Amino acid sequence: MMEDDFRSAAIVGLGLIGGSLARDLAERGMYVRAYDADPQHLNAALRDGFVADAMDASLSGVCDADVVIVAVPVDAATDVLRRIAPFAAHARLITDVGSTKSRIVALASELGVGSRFVGSHPLAGDHRSGWDASRTGLFSNARVYICPPADAANRLVELAAEFWRKLGASSTVLSAEDHDRQLAWTSHLPHMVSAALALALARTGVERSDLGPGGRDVTRLAGGSPDVWAAIARDNADALDAALATAERELAGIRSALNRNDSTELRRRLSSARAWFDL
Amino acid sequence: MMEDDFRSAAIVGLGLIGGSLARDLAERGMYVRAYDADPQHLNAALRDGFVADAMDASLSGVCDADVVIVAVPVDAATDVLRRIAPFAAHARLITDVGSTKSRIVALASELGVGSRFVGSHPLAGDHRSGWDASRTGLFSNARVYICPPADAANRLVELAAEFWRKLGASSTVLSAEDHDRQLAWTSHLPHMVSAALALALARTGVERSDLGPGGRDVTRLAGGSPDVWAAIARDNADALDAALATAERELAGIRSALNRNDSTELRRRLSSARAWFDL
Repeated sequence: MMEDDFRSAAIVGLGLIGGSLARDLAERGMYVRAYDADPQHLNAALRDGFVADAMDASLSGVCDADVVIVAVPVDAATDVLRRIAPFAAHARLITDVGSTKSRIVALASELGVGSRFVGSHPLAGDHRSGWDASRTGLFSNARVYICPPADAANRLVELAAEFWRKLGASSTVLSAEDHDRQLAWTSHLPHMVSAALALALARTGVERSDLGPGGRDVTRLAGGSPDVWAAIARDNADALDAALATAERELAGIRSALNRNDSTELRRRLSSARAWFDL
Repeated sequence: MMEDDFRSAAIVGLGLIGGSLARDLAERGMYVRAYDADPQHLNAALRDGFVADAMDASLSGVCDADVVIVAVPVDAATDVLRRIAPFAAHARLITDVGSTKSRIVALASELGVGSRFVGSHPLAGDHRSGWDASRTGLFSNARVYICPPADAANRLVELAAEFWRKLGASSTVLSAEDHDRQLAWTSHLPHMVSAALALALARTGVERSDLGPGGRDVTRLAGGSPDVWAAIARDNADALDAALATAERELAGIRSALNRNDSTELRRRLSSARAWFDL
C-alpha cells in the first residue's frame, strides 16, 4: 500500500512515465485505473496486470481515486485536466508529469482544484516512449521537480513529495515559472541540440552506427518522441528560443575562430567548455 | 610477445592513447621505450613499470624499435614524424594515432618512410586525457581506421591491422582523405556541438550537475582536451566548417519553426531526427 490512505490511483496516459507509474503503484498494492487514447497501450497494461480497470474516454472513472495523475504530452495535458477536474472530487492529490509547468499549474487554480493540484516533473525520461518502454523502478534515484500553485498549502507539497519519495525519487520544490526557465536550458536545449546534430548527419548520409561512443552519446536524445518534444518546445517557446539562440551563437563562434585560423581563440573556447565540464 | 618479431616499441607521447598503448604492449611482453615532453607523465610511466626506458628529447632512442608510434596531438605529430624519420631505420612499422590523417600520411611519403608508415586512428577516445587517464584494454572492441599511403604494400597494411587486432581492436582501411572527410561529421562535429552546448550553458550559469542524464550525455565530449581538439579542428578545418555550418542551419531551422509557432514543421523535423536515430 502506497500510504495508509492512498489506496487507488487513476492515470491518464500510459506512455513511458504513466506506464511506469502504473507498474510501480500496482506493485505497491494500489488499485490502478487508467486510460490511454491508444487502445493497444491500454490493453497491454490490462493484460500485463498492472492496470486493474480501464477508464472510458469520459475520464469520469477518476471519481473515486485518491491520487490522479495526468501523464499525457504537455499539449494534451491542459485539456485532460479540464476534463477530469469536475470528476476528481475524491482525489487528495492531482498531479501531472510534464516537462513544462507554468500553463498547467495556472490552469489548476483557474479550475478550482489548486488546493489539491501540484505539478510534477520527474527527470526520468528515456529516448524510448510508449507502454513498451515503461518499466518498474523508473523513478528510483530520479530527481522530481515539484511545482505547487503559489498559494498551495505545505501539507499538499509534502503529500506530493512523499508520493514520489515512495517510488524512490527525491524532489525539489520550485515555482512553475522558475522551473520552465531553468528546464529550457538544462533539458529542452540539450534535446534540440541533439536533434539538430542528428538532422545534420542525416542530411549528409552519415548513419548513427558510423559514430564512435562519443557521437552516439551526443545524438542519443534525438531518439525522443517527436510529439512529446514538439509540444514541450511550443509550450516553453520563449525561454527555449533564447537558449537556442545562445547555442547557435556559440557554434558560430567556434566556426568563426576556425575560419580565421585563430588557434588561440579556438583553444580558449574549448578550454572554457572543459572548465565548465570539470566544475 | 606481440609478434614473433615485434619485440620492442617506441612511443612518443604518453597521453590517453600513447599511455594505454604502453600499458598493453608492456603487458604483452614487449620492451617499451617512450618519450613525453611532460616529465611527470614519463616518470609516472617508468614508476608504474610499463615503460622500460625513457628516450631523450632527440628521439634518437627510436633507432632499435620494431614498431614506432607517434601519439602526440595532431599539430605536433608532423614535427615528431620529421624528427624520428632519420632514426627509425630499424622499424618495420611506423604509425600514429591522430584523429586527422591527410597531412601526416602525405608527409610520411615525402620523408621517404612511406613504405613503412601507416596512419592509424583508434576510436578509443575519452573525455579524459593524459597518462592518468590511460589504461590497459582501452582498445578492446574499439574500431581503428587504418590509412596507408596510396602506394603502400598490402603486407604493410596487414601488419598494421594485425598490430591493432592483437590489442582487441578491429580495423577498417580507407584513404586519408576519405577518413578526414568522414570524421569531420562522425567525430569532430559532435565534439564541437557538445562544446558549443557547454559554452551556452556556462554563459547562463547552468552547471553540469543541474542536467538530467540526457543533458549530461550531450555535454560529455565538452570535457575533451582543448589542445588535442583545437589541433584536430584546425587540421580538418575545411571539412569541419561545412559540417558546423550544416548543424548551425539545422539548429536555426528548429528555432525558426518554433518562432513561427509551426507545430507541423517542428514535429516533422523532430520526426526526421528520430527516423535517423531508429535507422
